Amino acid sequence: MFKTNFTETFGVEYPIVQGGMQWVGYAELVAAVANAGALGFITALTQPTPDDLAKEIKKCQDLTDKPFGVNLTILPSLNPPPYDEYRRAIIESGVKIVETAGYNPQEHLPELKENGIKVVHKCVSVRHAVKAESIGVDCVSIDGFECAGHPGEDDVPGLILIPCTADKISIPMIASGGFGDGRGLVAAMALGADGINMGTRFMCTKESCIHDAIKQQIVRNTELDTEMILRTLNNTSRVAKNAVSSEVVEIESKGGATIDDLAHLVTGKKGKQVYEAGDPDFGIWSAGQVQGLIHDIPTVKELVDRIVSEAEEIIQARLAGVFDEAQAAAE
Amino acid sequence: MFKTNFTETFGVEYPIVQGGMQWVGYAELVAAVANAGALGFITALTQPTPDDLAKEIKKCQDLTDKPFGVNLTILPSLNPPPYDEYRRAIIESGVKIVETAGYNPQEHLPELKENGIKVVHKCVSVRHAVKAESIGVDCVSIDGFECAGHPGEDDVPGLILIPCTADKISIPMIASGGFGDGRGLVAAMALGADGINMGTRFMCTKESCIHDAIKQQIVRNTELDTEMILRTLNNTSRVAKNAVSSEVVEIESKGGATIDDLAHLVTGKKGKQVYEAGDPDFGIWSAGQVQGLIHDIPTVKELVDRIVSEAEEIIQARLAGVFDEAQAAAE
Repeated sequence: MFKTNFTETFGVEYPIVQGGMQWVGYAELVAAVANAGALGFITALTQPTPDDLAKEIKKCQDLTDKPFGVNLTILPSLNPPPYDEYRRAIIESGVKIVETAGYNPQEHLPELKENGIKVVHKCVSVRHAVKAESIGVDCVSIDGFECAGHPGEDDVPGLILIPCTADKISIPMIASGGFGDGRGLVAAMALGADGINMGTRFMCTKESCIHDAIKQQIVRNTELDTEMILRTLNNTSRVAKNAVSSEVVEIESKGGATIDDLAHLVTGKKGKQVYEAGDPDFGIWSAGQVQGLIHDIPTVKELVDRIVSEAEEIIQARLAGVFDEAQAAAE
Repeated sequence: MFKTNFTETFGVEYPIVQGGMQWVGYAELVAAVANAGALGFITALTQPTPDDLAKEIKKCQDLTDKPFGVNLTILPSLNPPPYDEYRRAIIESGVKIVETAGYNPQEHLPELKENGIKVVHKCVSVRHAVKAESIGVDCVSIDGFECAGHPGEDDVPGLILIPCTADKISIPMIASGGFGDGRGLVAAMALGADGINMGTRFMCTKESCIHDAIKQQIVRNTELDTEMILRTLNNTSRVAKNAVSSEVVEIESKGGATIDDLAHLVTGKKGKQVYEAGDPDFGIWSAGQVQGLIHDIPTVKELVDRIVSEAEEIIQARLAGVFDEAQAAAE
């Protein structure tokens, strides 16, 4: 019913992705996304150990027989998590789709590919998408300035980034950042993407594990209620605007702040605590500008079905009608 | 052949606008846009006096018998241009479409409307679009973060700003900022707009008056070759990145710069001199991130025809094909 290079490559019904989200990408949400015909990803590093990840994958497999994946975010660290063990847990679980993000996934690709796993790499610039294709990933997820989390330092929104990337790669491409409804799905496909990734929108569904008070805050927030923090450290992050984010921005505006100066405000598990305790002002938590387009807390299936039917209506009525001479004459 | 609320309201063939551009919106370009079936605007304040504007309008009327308009940008100033006289020149010329920009156009509306003139108001936020509708403008041109010139201080790109605005107004809406091809036109319409405005893309056509060396610089530039200046003065402007813009950014990054500190770099007629002399490094000039999608210098008619046929192909093949079971089975 909805066929793009993405749905064909990954064997899912709809070109809609729920990519990795720290402290959000648990089995219940991912299984609900799979059962709705879209593609969800469990977030590996949200699980404290590779064994816990294996259990979370098993839990998801018990909740759905449709495809889902695991996100493995690679960040430089003096004391990195055991990436190889997380990778082994994914391979041994039988999961066949991995989303990589953060840094170059090259060292993980041979073993993933040997085990028949397809890789979606998330990136924030044309040059990184071109590089990802060249090292053999199966799909790029290109993330624009609008997004929650890490948009990079180039500040290029999807309207530009999606077609610029489409001109340079030939593998399937998912557009990420700023998507929440059927209008965005059609826009992304018009711009050259084969589907959309949504983060904030999936956070704000019934099956998402975050506290209902945070979902209600997302509904209240508008497109203006985000802030970009850590720009001065070249590690920009778009987060929900609150007293803590504004304090970070204020400190950064004075210049010269180090990560040590900011650590008490931004690091640790504040996002997890916000999501669990339901206090939107407790600390830093991620949300994208798409908050301005989020007005309810549907089930995942209601959300996916609505996006698909909105997209159908836009393509088959609104856009097709532009050329409909008979309709034009009748109006 | 291409029917939207915009084409119906303004009596033009295609939902494509060449809005006001200081030192670029002269009669030759505007007439070429009109003759190609789109809607161009002469920039009033590029003309040194209201009499000169009257002559420029007459020149354009001699070059086309199709509709075109005049842009009247309203900025606060201790020594403002004679807005009322410019407005009278427009009314007496017989032009029936005006694009207002900058501040609230309310004081100009009664006389424009009494004379049967339709008004497009350009704005950069949902709240200003809602206000514009409430005071009686006929169309909103909503300008996103990607745009050349003045994006405002909210940093909301089109992917978010267009649907958020569409949800709040009912008059026709043009999407502006980041548009340069048929993909963008279809995306804008999917997001809820009735057409697109293009600035940088029209600057880079054969009929545009700017020096060929500047057009070639736009072609060479990528989506990364812009900078936002004057953010610290709450008067953000997106300009082509060059040695001068980087000097401004550098001064601003140190904090506390005033307009007097920056005046020798940013004010006066530097844009005019850049466009006339063809030295892209001479001073500050406007260009949007859409530079990354501009790879040639076509005639206006070639450009408009290409955008329209790209849009048709996207709607009737790429998007419609998503639902085409027969096509799916054949592949």
